[in-house]
Amino acid sequence: MPQILAITGGVGGAKLALGLAHLLGPEELTFAVNAGDDFNHLGLEISPDLDTLTYTLADLANPETGWGRSDESWQFMAALGEMGGETWFQLGDRDLALHVRRTELLRQGSSRTEAAATIGQALGVAYPLLPMSDDPVRTTVHTNQGALAFQHYFVRERCQPEVISFEFQGLAAARANPAILSCLDRVDGIVICPSNPYVSVDPMLHLPGMREALIAASAPVVAVSPIVGGAAIKGPTAKMMRELAIPNTASAVAAHYGDLLDGFILDEQDQELEGALGVPAVVTQTVMITLQDRVDLARNVLAFIETLT
Amino acid sequence: MPQILAITGGVGGAKLALGLAHLLGPEELTFAVNAGDDFNHLGLEISPDLDTLTYTLADLANPETGWGRSDESWQFMAALGEMGGETWFQLGDRDLALHVRRTELLRQGSSRTEAAATIGQALGVAYPLLPMSDDPVRTTVHTNQGALAFQHYFVRERCQPEVISFEFQGLAAARANPAILSCLDRVDGIVICPSNPYVSVDPMLHLPGMREALIAASAPVVAVSPIVGGAAIKGPTAKMMRELAIPNTASAVAAHYGDLLDGFILDEQDQELEGALGVPAVVTQTVMITLQDRVDLARNVLAFIETLT
Repeated sequence: MPQILAITGGVGGAKLALGLAHLLGPEELTFAVNAGDDFNHLGLEISPDLDTLTYTLADLANPETGWGRSDESWQFMAALGEMGGETWFQLGDRDLALHVRRTELLRQGSSRTEAAATIGQALGVAYPLLPMSDDPVRTTVHTNQGALAFQHYFVRERCQPEVISFEFQGLAAARANPAILSCLDRVDGIVICPSNPYVSVDPMLHLPGMREALIAASAPVVAVSPIVGGAAIKGPTAKMMRELAIPNTASAVAAHYGDLLDGFILDEQDQELEGALGVPAVVTQTVMITLQDRVDLARNVLAFIETLT
Repeated sequence: MPQILAITGGVGGAKLALGLAHLLGPEELTFAVNAGDDFNHLGLEISPDLDTLTYTLADLANPETGWGRSDESWQFMAALGEMGGETWFQLGDRDLALHVRRTELLRQGSSRTEAAATIGQALGVAYPLLPMSDDPVRTTVHTNQGALAFQHYFVRERCQPEVISFEFQGLAAARANPAILSCLDRVDGIVICPSNPYVSVDPMLHLPGMREALIAASAPVVAVSPIVGGAAIKGPTAKMMRELAIPNTASAVAAHYGDLLDGFILDEQDQELEGALGVPAVVTQTVMITLQDRVDLARNVLAFIETLT
């Protein structure tokens, strides 16, 4: 029985996460989830990446938006707007229940890890869902329009301001989730899902001791490129790379992860980059439109890990 | 232009409040609202009486339930229940916006009075809505089944346990809303609406200095009996009185308010009690079914006050 740890952010990563979950049971697959874009909004503790993953695995995700719940209604948001409240971060009536529940659990003394487990179990998700840390980390995006809290940059300003740099408040003092660190001893492979390297994966890698622990693990670390043919399938990754003066290529992503990687998975469109990566690579279809695409990519990732073991 | 201060709790009091608002403009009518049954639930600051009054005056009240909003949906509550959250206190999707907004305003530093004004104005309510205090007061109901937080007694246990006594935590240290005290100098009449004397009016009267200030005011104080023919029109008042070994009569209510009263308004069904009250009384129809009933009673209350001035 192989043991896999999947490191993931939100939408892009959750697609591969779902594919992996179709192939592996809860005893075989653990998720380490970005919490760098968590924030408190309207008094609610919101964990966008964890929420997207939870809904995806619970088969409750909204396929049209890529975030939030399916079968959603918006009465709360409409009433809040009428009352002068902030409406730039869309919270559906059903989605709201998750944030209220988490906020309550944390206030009652649950850790973020415990709250994630309680909510996941209530929604029928048996996989361990491990936030990267139980300590709060906040991302600030320094832009040409000043410093913006991550969700203000990402949602309210729709990623329009030009990125200068990212700052992860609280990261230096945050403790990597011990449940993630302890599973490194037993896993047979570590997958970095096709999430944004700079804002969805870096917060986890920059946790004190995390990168070193991943390198020290005997299991191979493979990443799936979130950049295909110079573009991001989802989200602002390619735009950010241009603004940061990084070539918006899959090989730049591989270089960014550097010596952490034992293997890299490229899309067919980027086949010509294969030889220049400096790590073993697999070229396959990485664009996930259908559920079958997700499962096929997951199968290729697992097969690749087996060749590296 | 007469100036009226109306002291009110939730459902029963809000009916007369609406009648008064049909006769008097925002410059003529101020509401002092019970906050003794406020509580924090699911991390939200909930003020049931203030909320009912606000919705009533905004023409958003749910006529079927007597609480909450009209045109309501329940997706949040359903999702919260699926997630293992507490569902005994029903919060509609639109109603929820008010509680989230208040909680946010308080967290941002607004007083309860300021938050009530902000929300009232946003919903088109021009009347001053003054919570009895900016300090938190909590009601505990001591019952034959132990001590219960007020909403646990009132909503979760549906007033089934037998009442032994009430305890108002925080009341001795709470400061009466200065905006209520300062309006006592200029008002021409003070109306105690037909709310529960023990849990909806007493918290306000027991605020340090409040009862004395109401007695010292030159304006007459009149109360409308919430008990008609030995029964409460709405809510557990009569049941509570029996359990507290108080005769469940309108005259017992008048006696409870005692020397605070300059006049009392009795229902026609209780006409025989008129002579034994010890204060001037008016006998009229006090049961408010229609909007016209509310306006008619309000007109009788105002006419009564004029005779006492």
